This record gives sequence, structure tokens and C-alpha cells, in this order.
Amino acid sequence: MSLEPFFKPKSVAVIGASREPRKFGHVIFKNFVESEFKGNTYAVNPKADLILGLKVYARLSDIPSQVDLAVISLPAPLVPSAIDECVSKNVKAAIIVSGGFKEIGEKGELLELEIRRRVKGTGLRIIGPNCIGVYDPIDHVDTLFLPRYRLRRPKSGPIAFISQSGAFGSAVLDWAASQEIGISKFVSIGNKIDVDEVDLLEYLMDDPTTKCITLYVESVSRGREFLENASKVAKSKPLVVLKGGVTSEGARAAMSHTGSLAGTAKVVAGAFEQAGVIQAETVDQLFDYGRALAYLPIPKDRREIAIVTNGGGFGVISTDEASKLGLGLAKFSSETVNRLQERLPNYANVRNPLDLVGDADVNRYREALRAVSSDPGVGIILAIVLLQTSFIESDVVDAITESQVTSRKPVVVCTVGGDFTQILVKMLEENQIPSYATPERAMNAIYALTSYARALDDMAKKAALTK
Amino acid sequence: MSLEPFFKPKSVAVIGASREPRKFGHVIFKNFVESEFKGNTYAVNPKADLILGLKVYARLSDIPSQVDLAVISLPAPLVPSAIDECVSKNVKAAIIVSGGFKEIGEKGELLELEIRRRVKGTGLRIIGPNCIGVYDPIDHVDTLFLPRYRLRRPKSGPIAFISQSGAFGSAVLDWAASQEIGISKFVSIGNKIDVDEVDLLEYLMDDPTTKCITLYVESVSRGREFLENASKVAKSKPLVVLKGGVTSEGARAAMSHTGSLAGTAKVVAGAFEQAGVIQAETVDQLFDYGRALAYLPIPKDRREIAIVTNGGGFGVISTDEASKLGLGLAKFSSETVNRLQERLPNYANVRNPLDLVGDADVNRYREALRAVSSDPGVGIILAIVLLQTSFIESDVVDAITESQVTSRKPVVVCTVGGDFTQILVKMLEENQIPSYATPERAMNAIYALTSYARALDDMAKKAALTK
Repeated sequence: MSLEPFFKPKSVAVIGASREPRKFGHVIFKNFVESEFKGNTYAVNPKADLILGLKVYARLSDIPSQVDLAVISLPAPLVPSAIDECVSKNVKAAIIVSGGFKEIGEKGELLELEIRRRVKGTGLRIIGPNCIGVYDPIDHVDTLFLPRYRLRRPKSGPIAFISQSGAFGSAVLDWAASQEIGISKFVSIGNKIDVDEVDLLEYLMDDPTTKCITLYVESVSRGREFLENASKVAKSKPLVVLKGGVTSEGARAAMSHTGSLAGTAKVVAGAFEQAGVIQAETVDQLFDYGRALAYLPIPKDRREIAIVTNGGGFGVISTDEASKLGLGLAKFSSETVNRLQERLPNYANVRNPLDLVGDADVNRYREALRAVSSDPGVGIILAIVLLQTSFIESDVVDAITESQVTSRKPVVVCTVGGDFTQILVKMLEENQIPSYATPERAMNAIYALTSYARALDDMAKKAALTK
Repeated sequence: MSLEPFFKPKSVAVIGASREPRKFGHVIFKNFVESEFKGNTYAVNPKADLILGLKVYARLSDIPSQVDLAVISLPAPLVPSAIDECVSKNVKAAIIVSGGFKEIGEKGELLELEIRRRVKGTGLRIIGPNCIGVYDPIDHVDTLFLPRYRLRRPKSGPIAFISQSGAFGSAVLDWAASQEIGISKFVSIGNKIDVDEVDLLEYLMDDPTTKCITLYVESVSRGREFLENASKVAKSKPLVVLKGGVTSEGARAAMSHTGSLAGTAKVVAGAFEQAGVIQAETVDQLFDYGRALAYLPIPKDRREIAIVTNGGGFGVISTDEASKLGLGLAKFSSETVNRLQERLPNYANVRNPLDLVGDADVNRYREALRAVSSDPGVGIILAIVLLQTSFIESDVVDAITESQVTSRKPVVVCTVGGDFTQILVKMLEENQIPSYATPERAMNAIYALTSYARALDDMAKKAALTK
């Protein structure tokens, strides 16, 4: 059955809704009631009459109409019978946010088996347990039980984010919100009693709001199916995966965290590459790559880079990083060189990296970006913009966006600094130009773009061979 | 002659002081006049009578009293005669912020030779040209000609920062200020006509306010002397170096940036290691390492790590990173295990990484940190604190600081998130506990601590052999 009811339910029941403001069952109920969620929300709790001034149902079966999605926030031992109620009521989807299952040992594992047994053969799909559930900023489904002043919710955007770990998911979501990064859907899959990353890949593959999928996972329960779906996804949209537990020490830690075994670094890297999955090696890279791949056109034939900067040092460091990553810098055509020499002051350095020097203003950036982006030898542009001089204003964002829109060549930005710089970062983010706080991170994002471009090439070749 | 007059001048003359608010010569003059700088400041400009309501001298020689430091902000061709005036007036130190020298080619190179010729045999020391000069938050020397709303000045602190590139320096200073990171001294050395990194290492070695030196350099003009001074420095305080131009492509870019040749990656790494220099491989690492080394005690015998976390996923990722870096996790003693089992709820995972689980509060952190920091097998502690749950408040900073102060074992923090998290980050910074935005960066900071500890061991062994 489709996962649609998790994201677009017409009605939701919160089983274990509570009057206590700090209880998860309260926060979740409040999220639905006080948001722009368009469906009906029902509170289920045998011990309460009213929550937030709304009627409470003693049992799920007391609710007079259809319930699409049940969110279960009950002590673990009470969950199996709540699942029974969901089945009787013909609920389509359930999210179990409760902990106290496989992650605590044998007793919890038995509870999971019990739930599996009861749900088998019914149409009910389950996310969790031991998870924070779903956040969908478009349809306003929000089962995150953490207060908004602690976990700010990101706005809607093109990046889907799946996390096996709830804490990982909530920390990254909160960070993403602070950076004005938009999310299409977030799912915390926890112990994966039913819905896992394989199902979600299948669902998100056809989700029109998702341009790129990011995934943090410690164990892949169905390895073969995962790689199959991953390579299907990769054909139409990029998939970035951060795999926890890639070392044997990390795998042991993962074992005790989510109770599941993890693979080793080399095997993982090889399998991912073959499936066209872009592997993030660090937490930073998950969204560094995700943003570049979600926002930018994928470079087709030309992948050589032009670096434009108003700080020579950062040009040097970027060049070092490109070289370490095996990325090539473009050689400017003589037309480009002539054009640049004509338009730039004689003390600017007309080579690649192109140093516009400290007194560069928006016009110098505009001329430079126009020239390099129309050079047929340039495939990707790294614009380094340092705002510590007052020659440059935030309208440099317009020049960068213009270059991106006109040339359809991806532009990645690096900008380093404090408060004033952060304004630029957010303006760029608003225009879906990914910016990075260091030249190394920017260059690695370019590496991800070229890796995905190569993966697409490989897939096209394979497809041609098997025709 | 000592470099003291650059940092503690009793009187300063700004040659090329200007009435135009945007001109560098105006900003610099204003910096001295409007700050808490205790000495006298004189403006020199033959075309102005008053600047900021203060008397302007037509020539340096018109100033009736001694001038310790001259800051020269004039077009390059006028600089040699300004230097002559400095020599006649017995000025001790000059900072040339002007550009238009070696970095623009032969014409500029000749000007540099001219200055060298004129200053030879005199006592005058020169920083620059093509630099932004000196920032000393203790004695309020500030020649940074960039407006404060663009380049916020960091407060005073234990980290000295030398940058060959002015743009690199100003971007990183602005960032450091936004993070409440304190600086002891900043020097932008530019074209290094006289004072270079070798001189500055010698000076900073004995500077009591500097606990750690960070350096961004593209070319080392005097390689042997640099390594000699670096290893002298390393004996008493850590030196972290980010070297630009370590690849041949990067070196070519550096050549055109500062007009100087750079070494290759392997040679650099080997030489640095032998001298006890901690090499930063990325811009992030320069201050990631610098903060850990400046704030924390260096681990002596035991270097095994204890990880304490309220998010299992980040524990897994940290363990992966430790393993990749060849760092060992501590095995807790049976006393520690017993103590933890007694004090922690039964669903917490008593192993390393120690998962305190999502509902951990400050008391659970306090108990855990006390137990692991008093375990003789633990040398370093990584505390991962996720603030997305409302169980944990910012007083966790006290528990972390207490553990650090009591045990004298270094504690490094990782915390991921948005605005609320940034408050914690700044509180920790205030207490000189370094915190990091990802587990990988935190673990790399630990790697820097252990690298420096190893370097100290090696130096002690060498010293014992040569006795």
C-alpha cells in the first residue's frame, strides 16, 4: 500500500494525547491542532476529557469518522493493543514514536515481534517505533514531539531527509531551519518495524516536490532491495547517503544504538558507487551535497571549474582542494581572456583562479561571471565572495543568480565571515544558490555535482548496452 | 630589534590620513583616535588641516614628539620617500598597508627593492606592503582599514593569528568575532618586505598572552629558519599552520597571488611533523585545532577517548571518525561501569560511546562526566550535547566545565543545531571549552590534541638523547 496517508492524511488520531504540556502526546496533538493542517485531528486518551479545549475520545473506536493516520505515543507495553485498535478501525498508517523496543534489548524485541504478528496481513503500515516520525511542511504533518523553540521547523523546499536516528534528524532539522534550508519531507524511521528506507525511496522517487533525497542510516535492513531502489532513484534524482557504522568500531556502537549490524567502509563505498548513490563522508557533507544537487543543474559535458574571487588566498586554497579531489580547473579561451582584460582593471589577475582583487565591486563580479560562464571550456563556477570590504554589497547575489540563470551552468558560492556574511548566505539560499563557509566545503560540493554527473553517464552507457 | 613597537607603540602616525570616510587612511586614523588606544595619534597629510577635528601634520618631521609606529597608506610610488621620512624621524616600526608592489609584477617589485635599499642598515622594521597590518585587542592597535560593520573585531583571547593573505585574515577575524573567539594578536604580513612569519614566531614565543599560534601562509621565505623557530615554539606552545599552495596547481595560483613559490604537500607535511607543527588541512581546522590547543590541557599519558552523548547516532559517527583517525576509545574500568549502572537509568547504554539517551538531563550528564573523567583509562572526553529536547538546559555548560576543571582532562564538545544551540556554543566558548558543529570536526580537534601530545613526547625524547 502507498505511503501517502503518512504525508497527506485527511484525519489524524493522536493515541496517548496528553494534557501535560511537556508530554510528547501533548506536543504532537498541539502540532496538528495549531498548525495549518487541513484535516481533522482527534485526541485519544481514556483519562482526559478536554485537551486544548477539544474533545478527547476514550478509545480510537469512539471516533465517529474515518482515521487515516494514527500517531501512537504510549508506553511500549501498551502499543500492541493500540495497534489492534488501529487495525479494527481500518486506520491506514500508524507512527509509533514510543521508545522501549529493540533498542533496550530482548524484552523490547519481543514487543516488536508481537506488533509484527498483529499487523501481518492487514493493510496497516507502520513507521517506527523509537522514532520522531514525520515532518511535512507542505501538508503540515508534524509528529515531532520536540518544542518549536528547541527544534525550529524548516520551511518547505526541495530536499527530502530520512534519518534512522531521531536525535540526528532533529539536530539537523533545527540546523537546517536556522540556515533557511527548505525540506520537502522528513521521516525518522527508527527501528523500522515496517516502513524502511527502501519503501521511502520508492515513494520519494515519484514525489514531485523532492528534487534530492538525503539519508542518514546505520543499518540497511534489505541490502539488495535498497541498492535496486537506490539505482532506480538515481536515474531521476540524486540520492546522498551518510552511512553510520562504516568502521568496525562504529558498527559496534551502531549495534548497541539501533540494534542492527552495519557494513564496512569499503563494501559500502563500492556498493553505493555502483548504484549511483553519492556518499557523504561527514555530517556536513550530507546537506552540503544535498543542497548543491537539489538546487543546481547537473553539468553535462564540461566539468572544468572556473574560480572567481576577491581574495587571492581563498583562490589558492580552492585550487589546492580541487587538485586533491582530482577536479580540473578550466583553461580560459583567448576570447575570455581578452574580454576580461578589457573589462577588468589592469591589476586584476586574468587567469584561473580569477583574482578580482580586494576592491572588486558588483560590476566587476558581473563582468567576470558573464565572461567565464559563456566560455565553452567552463562547466562549473565557484564564486568566492568576501564581504569584509565595503566595495561589495549584497546585490552581488543578483550578479551570481543572473550568471546561473543565463548560462545554466552551476554556480557554487563560498563566503566566509560573521553577521553581515550570514545575510548574504540567506539571500543566496533563498535564490537556491548553495553557499559554503569554507572553500574546501564548496569544492567538495562541486565534487558531488561531478560525481552525480558521472553516475548519470555510467547509467546511460549501461542502458545503451542492454538495449 | 624587537617587534614590540608594532604592538605596544606609545605614539602612532598615520601617513596618508584622509578626510574621506571610505579611504583606508581615514579608517585607520579613526581606529586609533576612537578606540581605547592610550598613546598619541598623529595624522600626516600635506593637503588637510583637520581630520575628525584633530590637527593634521603636513610632514612626519613636523610632529613635535617621538613617533614609535608609522602606518603608511599612500599610493605605492610615494611609499619609498615616506620610508625615508620614517628613517629620518627615527620611527621604530612601519606598517605599509598599500598595494601595488610585488603582487602586480616587475614595476612593483622594483619599488620593493627601492624600499629595502633605503631601509637597510637603519633600525626601522617594516610589516607589509600589501597587507592589512596589525590588530591587537589588548593595546588597541588596529590598522585594519575595513569598516567595523563589515569586519567585526574579535575580543582579546589566547590565540595569535598570522595571515599572509589580508583577505583570508579579515574573513577569518570577522568569523571569529561572530563566534566570540578571542585573539591575542593578529598580523597580516603581506609581501613580507621585512617582518615575516619567522620573526613573528620568535616574538610570539615569549608573548605571555598567546597560548597558541595559528598561521596561514602560502610561501615560507626562509624555510630553515622557519622550521628552527617553529620547533622552538612547539616546545612551549602549539603552532597550527594552514599552508596554501600545497598542490602544484595551488602553488601556481599562489605564485600569482603573492608572487612566491610554494612547496609540495608531502614535503610540507613531513617538515611540519618533524618540527612539531600541527598542520591544518582545511580552513575550518585552523581554528578548530587552535581553539582546542589554546583552551585545553594537553593529555599526558592516557589519550583514550570517552564519548558521552544524548544522541546515539552522533555517538556512532564519532566512533567511525575516531577509527578513521586511528584514535582509540577507552575501555571503562569495572568501577566506572558499576558507578554508571548505579546512577543512570537502566535503559541508558553503559558502554563507550556512552548513550545517555534522549531524555538525559543535566544531572545525568554530571554523573556520567564525573564517572568517566575519573576513570584512569580515560584521557580525553568528547561530550555530545543535543539541545533539541527540553530535558536539557544550558546549565549543562556547568557540568562540562566542572568535569574539565576537576579532572584536568580535556573535554571537547559537539553540539548541532540552530539558534538555541548557538547560545550554548557561546557559553562554552566563554568558558574556554571548545565546541564543534559536527562530530567529525570535534574528533579532528581531539586528533590535534593527541598529535601535539605526541610531538611533545618526541621532543622530550630527543632532548634526553642529546643530553
